[in-house]
Amino acid sequence: MSTSELPPRALFAMNPVHLPELFPPRLMARLTALARIEPALVVTDFTDPAMAGPLAEADVLITGWGCPRIDGSVLAAAPRLRAVLHAAGSVRNLVSPEVWEQGVSVSNAVRANALPVAEFTLAAILLSGKDAFGLRERFRTDHVFPPPADYAKIGNLGKRVGIIGASRVGRRLLELLRPFDFSVTLYDPYIDAAEARALGAVLVPLDELMRTSDIISLNAPDIPETYRMLDRGRLSLMPDGSVLVNTSRGALVDPDALTDELVSGRISAVLDVTEPEPLPGDSPLYGLPNVFLTPHIAGSLGNELERLGRTVVDELALLGEGSPLAHAVCQADLVNSA
Amino acid sequence: MSTSELPPRALFAMNPVHLPELFPPRLMARLTALARIEPALVVTDFTDPAMAGPLAEADVLITGWGCPRIDGSVLAAAPRLRAVLHAAGSVRNLVSPEVWEQGVSVSNAVRANALPVAEFTLAAILLSGKDAFGLRERFRTDHVFPPPADYAKIGNLGKRVGIIGASRVGRRLLELLRPFDFSVTLYDPYIDAAEARALGAVLVPLDELMRTSDIISLNAPDIPETYRMLDRGRLSLMPDGSVLVNTSRGALVDPDALTDELVSGRISAVLDVTEPEPLPGDSPLYGLPNVFLTPHIAGSLGNELERLGRTVVDELALLGEGSPLAHAVCQADLVNSA
Repeated sequence: MSTSELPPRALFAMNPVHLPELFPPRLMARLTALARIEPALVVTDFTDPAMAGPLAEADVLITGWGCPRIDGSVLAAAPRLRAVLHAAGSVRNLVSPEVWEQGVSVSNAVRANALPVAEFTLAAILLSGKDAFGLRERFRTDHVFPPPADYAKIGNLGKRVGIIGASRVGRRLLELLRPFDFSVTLYDPYIDAAEARALGAVLVPLDELMRTSDIISLNAPDIPETYRMLDRGRLSLMPDGSVLVNTSRGALVDPDALTDELVSGRISAVLDVTEPEPLPGDSPLYGLPNVFLTPHIAGSLGNELERLGRTVVDELALLGEGSPLAHAVCQADLVNSA
Repeated sequence: MSTSELPPRALFAMNPVHLPELFPPRLMARLTALARIEPALVVTDFTDPAMAGPLAEADVLITGWGCPRIDGSVLAAAPRLRAVLHAAGSVRNLVSPEVWEQGVSVSNAVRANALPVAEFTLAAILLSGKDAFGLRERFRTDHVFPPPADYAKIGNLGKRVGIIGASRVGRRLLELLRPFDFSVTLYDPYIDAAEARALGAVLVPLDELMRTSDIISLNAPDIPETYRMLDRGRLSLMPDGSVLVNTSRGALVDPDALTDELVSGRISAVLDVTEPEPLPGDSPLYGLPNVFLTPHIAGSLGNELERLGRTVVDELALLGEGSPLAHAVCQADLVNSA
């Protein structure tokens, strides 16, 4: 039997705290059947001398949150490496260009990771359309039902939802929005009107989306082109009483301008991400009744990590068959996506 | 042209405050084309002498929230009445048996009214699965991200959702839950395992549902059989850390037992309905971090009232054609549904 017929040798490289959630026992059993891997061995530092042996033999690195950057020196230490399977989202900060240049395949779990973000965002939109977050705060203080006149602008029938970014999360969110009676617009510089229509939305310029949406969801990637895309001017276009939902990244919004708008009470927000993160303890956003602030939980968490692990195990099965990876990422993909 | 060829004479009977939302201008125009109706005339008291004339001529009553009960004396005052079209949910407290006995058709907008309730409930389930309500409260106080170990039980992958009641809301909710990776059980004494399977759920006895659900949604009607169906014993079956979502009616739950469980912190809840309603100002439920309490807003509100109005206008069109009503309610329907 030649070495090439044996299953690939794989090695974990990540913060080990997440390993039991990424690979619960049943999934770990599938993994160890597909690869020669030491389930208890996890690299956290590629320069650790104790890891030189395992690295030298590794065909595959199974990476996750907390994995150090894979650059030329790691490639030199892992001469047999042919795939990096990332059990998490973007590989932007994980792999350096040499990885692709040396012919190593890279794959990520962006698709699996998009599901919980889209789910959380859908829920945030549905409750925002009912002003549930605001009415709850008010009820908590006043202990009375608001008069019917206060409900006039409330409700999800025909409410205008603007999605910024036809990312994986954005596309999944557009699918999830279909059973509801929203009027959906989309801004994305890389798609055309026909594709937007196929996704269930009307393509509009960003400023128009800002001006005409009751609820805006930010689903664009964190790349140089999107840095502060919602600046003070753009935020000022939002209608009075409208809501910003951000489950993407804080860097996409001017934090001072957003704080000013929220402190004034002119708009509301559901913020799962901020800049900085977490916000300093004296930030008014923690206490404002028009801000529902969560500690970056929309992405895969707890039991949802298993979905990322499944993606990696499925990729390993494809590798073993000699089939192309289902979630391969090439260097060019990093330009427009996270 | 004989009288029978003219459109029916219709008359509004409800709390007039809701009329502009039920029938916005475009819908009112459709309504006035289908029926001879005075848009500004709304009966709030059937014994008002000024209403005797309009009542005597009315073929159809278009009713809504705040309409007084329609009993034998109203029927005597409205001898031409052939239909009561209710632009709201249950007609349980609206019509007395004489209405059906005298051959008057009754229809309601329960189906349209179920949509927003199911939407709100879905959102409450999705955010409960991420512990978003609890983590938000904690973040508000602590200003730090919880350690990863605290996330172990969090997440919507494979979370067990138990639906109590295959009502209109329950059925719509079961549809809406399909795109997600929940494990769904259903309790309903009037359906069998095959029907539950077709709805996407596993039928289980109520006690088993209470014991094996991470999130329980109460979607049963408020009828004598469901009064206090979640009593102290049943609530005690809920697993530690599980969540009760109630968008049905407060009467279905023992309020003291629920308060005790919530004050102890053993379980959490999303409560859009309570008993009494609103709760007294000194209720601990307003302030608890594990209770997301909203002022009975899951049902049709604000712009969502138009969906109820549309149901009535569609029914009027059917009446005009001599077709059967799409949402006819018979007396027997009131036994098992709201």
